[in-house]
Amino acid sequence: MFKLTMTFRVEWGETDTAGIIFYPNYYRWFDRAAHQLLYDAGLPARELTRQGYVQPILECGARFHKPLIYHDLVELNAEITEVKNKTFRIEYRVKRGDSVVAEGFEVRAWAKQPESGIREQMSATPIPPEYATLLCQDGEK
Amino acid sequence: MFKLTMTFRVEWGETDTAGIIFYPNYYRWFDRAAHQLLYDAGLPARELTRQGYVQPILECGARFHKPLIYHDLVELNAEITEVKNKTFRIEYRVKRGDSVVAEGFEVRAWAKQPESGIREQMSATPIPPEYATLLCQDGEK
Amino acid sequence: MFKLTMTFRVEWGETDTAGIIFYPNYYRWFDRAAHQLLYDAGLPARELTRQGYVQPILECGARFHKPLIYHDLVELNAEITEVKNKTFRIEYRVKRGDSVVAEGFEVRAWAKQPESGIREQMSATPIPPEYATLLCQDGEK
Amino acid sequence: MFKLTMTFRVEWGETDTAGIIFYPNYYRWFDRAAHQLLYDAGLPARELTRQGYVQPILECGARFHKPLIYHDLVELNAEITEVKNKTFRIEYRVKRGDSVVAEGFEVRAWAKQPESGIREQMSATPIPPEYATLLCQDGEK
Repeated sequence: MFKLTMTFRVEWGETDTAGIIFYPNYYRWFDRAAHQLLYDAGLPARELTRQGYVQPILECGARFHKPLIYHDLVELNAEITEVKNKTFRIEYRVKRGDSVVAEGFEVRAWAKQPESGIREQMSATPIPPEYATLLCQDGEK
Repeated sequence: MFKLTMTFRVEWGETDTAGIIFYPNYYRWFDRAAHQLLYDAGLPARELTRQGYVQPILECGARFHKPLIYHDLVELNAEITEVKNKTFRIEYRVKRGDSVVAEGFEVRAWAKQPESGIREQMSATPIPPEYATLLCQDGEK
Repeated sequence: MFKLTMTFRVEWGETDTAGIIFYPNYYRWFDRAAHQLLYDAGLPARELTRQGYVQPILECGARFHKPLIYHDLVELNAEITEVKNKTFRIEYRVKRGDSVVAEGFEVRAWAKQPESGIREQMSATPIPPEYATLLCQDGEK
Repeated sequence: MFKLTMTFRVEWGETDTAGIIFYPNYYRWFDRAAHQLLYDAGLPARELTRQGYVQPILECGARFHKPLIYHDLVELNAEITEVKNKTFRIEYRVKRGDSVVAEGFEVRAWAKQPESGIREQMSATPIPPEYATLLCQDGEK
């Protein structure tokens, strides 16, 4: 389904005391790509938020094959791979040159944001059909 | 005026590729202390937010004397040093043992948060007198 | 095996545009606990690093049951649950009050850090027996 | 002297509980630009690090005129404005459209990184003349 590729460099402050990438940053990159994917698919978060919709994470995971270091040129591939009634799945692949250095995924819920002040009470809700269609389209940016 | 001391260790991911503290983290610590100061002074951000009040940063700065490394035990002193009509100032001192490794400050506005969706239009507003009194009290936690 | 509990509050800058915890921060917390666990078990990272040993992440994952918001008081339980020849596993549980809001795990390799400049070439190496014993001990801080 | 312009969007996780940019992120952006400036000027940090040189921060500061929110398109202008014997200064301007939303600066030392394990003992050293020339050149990327 919908996919994208982002290219960027590992930053000076994204590494840890061992001099290699601090791994929570992979998930920052995944989240960056997830929001860009939705935007490119015609689902900009600013507009969804105005309608009260958010896409909180339900589950995620990653495997790391090789460490990245400062200034490595990273290619991040993201693709929506599953759209269910109330959730959707995005899969990620992180490459340096031809080498796959990490792989991961996110499962996100479609949720209705409650009034401010009781944000902890979000609950999953069916993805509106017109939005599910956008998530399911083939496309690439 | 009101002050506090926090003690914590430099974390594994808070350093940069040179193995020393990545300096934006000092400001994360300052912000952490600022919110704790307000909370301890009787001005919890959750309640202020409910009333539509936020304290956005207007100006900040810091001088760094010695680098910190992973696992250093840090003592952070924060004190409200000035309360004006629409702004207040907090000063920070970062110590490792007896040595002052960094000093900094923040000037924050008292602002009214507009309705969601037009957040960029916040404007400074006079600090309500009962809140100014809390900011000006002497105290320490 | 060895375990610990950390207690802290969600910080002002740890939430996202929806006002709930930005999920990569869970992994920052996991990493914080992992390093504290090793330290408490008698394996301080500063000393291990001096010996050339690091513990890079091989795999991790998490499930999120309820979102956290600013100032929530979080209890993080971490426990080493498996020690193999070249890897070990830590499991995490994140609680707010009596409610489990997230669960996760990390699998870390025991690796020898090469000379500076070729850090991307780390490879897993057997955990030295005296260190494996420390990882396998029962204990809690 | 040497300058650059970077363009990027505010990310979903870069805002705080008030829904506006979490201000330490400005300094993350400044640091990103500083390293890119050095790279573009012919002073790549990977090579400098190999020679034992680092550029730790001595002083920094910023003024914030308007808050940024998620997905704002940001233009960051950075320019080296002063090169002294052992330090140099970079000035930053952050724009959204035609509006300057923030301004800041960094003063960085030229320092010799000591052997691993005693990183806290870095001290400023004169900028080698060939590198000072590169810092002082006019140029833009």
